Amino acid sequence: MSVTAAQGFTAAGIAAGIKANGNPDLALVVNNGPRLAAAGVFTSNRVKAAPVHWSEQVLRGGIVSAVVLNSGGANACTGPKGFQDTHATAEKVAEALGGEHNAGEVAVASTGLIGVLLPMDKLLPGIDTAVAALTADGGEDAAVAIKTTDTVHKTATVSEGGWTVGGMAKGAGMLAPGLATMLVVLTTDADLDSATLDRALRSATRTTFDRVDSDGCMSTNDTVLLLASGASGEVPAYEAFAEAVRTVCDDLARQLIGDAEGASKDIRIEVIGAADEDDAVEVGRSIARNNLLKCAIHGEDPNWGRVLSAIGTTKAAFDPDRLNVAINGVWVCKNGSVGEDRDLVSMKGREVRITADLATGGESAVIWANDLTAEYVHENSAYSS
Amino acid sequence: MSVTAAQGFTAAGIAAGIKANGNPDLALVVNNGPRLAAAGVFTSNRVKAAPVHWSEQVLRGGIVSAVVLNSGGANACTGPKGFQDTHATAEKVAEALGGEHNAGEVAVASTGLIGVLLPMDKLLPGIDTAVAALTADGGEDAAVAIKTTDTVHKTATVSEGGWTVGGMAKGAGMLAPGLATMLVVLTTDADLDSATLDRALRSATRTTFDRVDSDGCMSTNDTVLLLASGASGEVPAYEAFAEAVRTVCDDLARQLIGDAEGASKDIRIEVIGAADEDDAVEVGRSIARNNLLKCAIHGEDPNWGRVLSAIGTTKAAFDPDRLNVAINGVWVCKNGSVGEDRDLVSMKGREVRITADLATGGESAVIWANDLTAEYVHENSAYSS
Repeated sequence: MSVTAAQGFTAAGIAAGIKANGNPDLALVVNNGPRLAAAGVFTSNRVKAAPVHWSEQVLRGGIVSAVVLNSGGANACTGPKGFQDTHATAEKVAEALGGEHNAGEVAVASTGLIGVLLPMDKLLPGIDTAVAALTADGGEDAAVAIKTTDTVHKTATVSEGGWTVGGMAKGAGMLAPGLATMLVVLTTDADLDSATLDRALRSATRTTFDRVDSDGCMSTNDTVLLLASGASGEVPAYEAFAEAVRTVCDDLARQLIGDAEGASKDIRIEVIGAADEDDAVEVGRSIARNNLLKCAIHGEDPNWGRVLSAIGTTKAAFDPDRLNVAINGVWVCKNGSVGEDRDLVSMKGREVRITADLATGGESAVIWANDLTAEYVHENSAYSS
Repeated sequence: MSVTAAQGFTAAGIAAGIKANGNPDLALVVNNGPRLAAAGVFTSNRVKAAPVHWSEQVLRGGIVSAVVLNSGGANACTGPKGFQDTHATAEKVAEALGGEHNAGEVAVASTGLIGVLLPMDKLLPGIDTAVAALTADGGEDAAVAIKTTDTVHKTATVSEGGWTVGGMAKGAGMLAPGLATMLVVLTTDADLDSATLDRALRSATRTTFDRVDSDGCMSTNDTVLLLASGASGEVPAYEAFAEAVRTVCDDLARQLIGDAEGASKDIRIEVIGAADEDDAVEVGRSIARNNLLKCAIHGEDPNWGRVLSAIGTTKAAFDPDRLNVAINGVWVCKNGSVGEDRDLVSMKGREVRITADLATGGESAVIWANDLTAEYVHENSAYSS
């Protein structure tokens, strides 16, 4: 159901010829109102792609009438020409939609290889094709068109009390967002203003996309947008709406981890007993990024020593002699030393749960990561060649 | 020539049976004086192995008469029993050497799997064997006995003006020291006090071992010791001595990178144009730890976009639109955008040079790293099983 699950939206996904293999590569999402409220969060990488610079400006106005997304090229590190191309893309969308809305209300997102200009001779005509293909059930096609190395397209929907939040996401590598992540478009027909959308979106991404750390590599193009059409006429209570947004974000974030490049395991790292949430996140991220541990988990080896060596590199509050670690529920490390028999740990399933107890306070956080595999190496050795 | 290149030292390397495969696993280095001055630097990981805790105490006295090192077990995260075992090992060495020196002058170092107690019933008798095997040319045997996943043993020597600095190192994985690294023992017959040794050693490790970042994983056992016998009777000028220590450390550090687990490339990352040295090191380390870039280099793909995305995650001073990146001398990125033709870059050799110009100031730093390969994944998936 994707971005067209909510009333008031049309979408399309088509093949514009940006990808050499002819797969779909251009998605368009249009908000038909009556409201055009929007919020967005973007990568905290200081090297930002042209479409991120553009869309940050668009979102400052709190109004988005359309989002155009392309795969097949990130338009990052492409200089002034790259920014001109993004601007021209937004102008073309505004014009092709009949000129009712100006380019300043069109958000742009791109994904693919960094450092290559987009083939504008293919992209601009593709926008006409996409506009002609817009339908009220085009959400799935749009979700397919934003895939890069994704093996599946990713959508999620929550409906309640007459209003709906739906969304689509793409992402399979360079997956360690700092403030936002990957390309995600969420839509709702709830009748809410952009300030409320912004609050709900930031609250949701903070504990969902921001807690995904597949490979420690932060993208230049991460974008999450939330558009509201108001078409349901419903004004949900803030808490109920925020929870729905969080649920959709969490669902999409889990799908991203589940489809991470070359991964054979999804690793749920829960840090408990932390003095504060920042400590819990710092420790979780350090564990998530430890290549040796990621290899061990790939080998189904409950190597808790690598968890402790990762915790030891952080500034979090803990006493090394009080640390406890469980893998899939077996406390293999107690008080910083050998605990229960590691042979009791079964790691056959795709999901592996690591619990790290800092034994210092009452705060916690969950980070999701993936294992490190020969397939990841293979896929990312060959990506641009 | 290793640790016995300098006069006044004897050493041995033997198989005590700690390793299941029967390979050498116990090394002993003895300072026969007349001086027994020493300095040491240790891992900055807050989870420290028992022998690190012990040896830090020993080095506080500035006197080391012997160093005993075992492979086959790290004695890390082994609780009070692990520390007792380290203490017993030092006591046994002091006793076996004739009781002239006490255990408080015996440094201990261990390497191998974390979280497993050492087989003391094999280690302690092994010390008698090692003492019996001590010779003035035992440095090579000692260097062999500290290997774990190392494919070669690593030694280096500098001699000048009647005095010598020599050393041995082990290390092939979990190789991203924060203050020190791996197991390294350096010896000299120069007649210098421990304060001078300490100054020269810290100065050398700061720009050699501390600039090695093979896989981003900091060990619990990193130890670098420098022992002086004074046996040459020479008192070199500080600068000449410090430079000799730096040369030996640099040589050993390069050997570590060259033997890193599963690596097919040695990556020399030079950050130039930085506002200060800390910025240069932060940026170099961020590039060194980017798994996607490490994969790209393995695939001989000059993917400079991944260099920029790594730089963008740092707090260093730079303007994204002024960044320049060269790979093997070809400036593939200029002013944050496409530069010279990437097809001009040849990456066939083992060494790959990345130059990142922050275009902000005049400071620089060099970090050494490795590529990420299927062999690294394979080796580290199977290590403890």
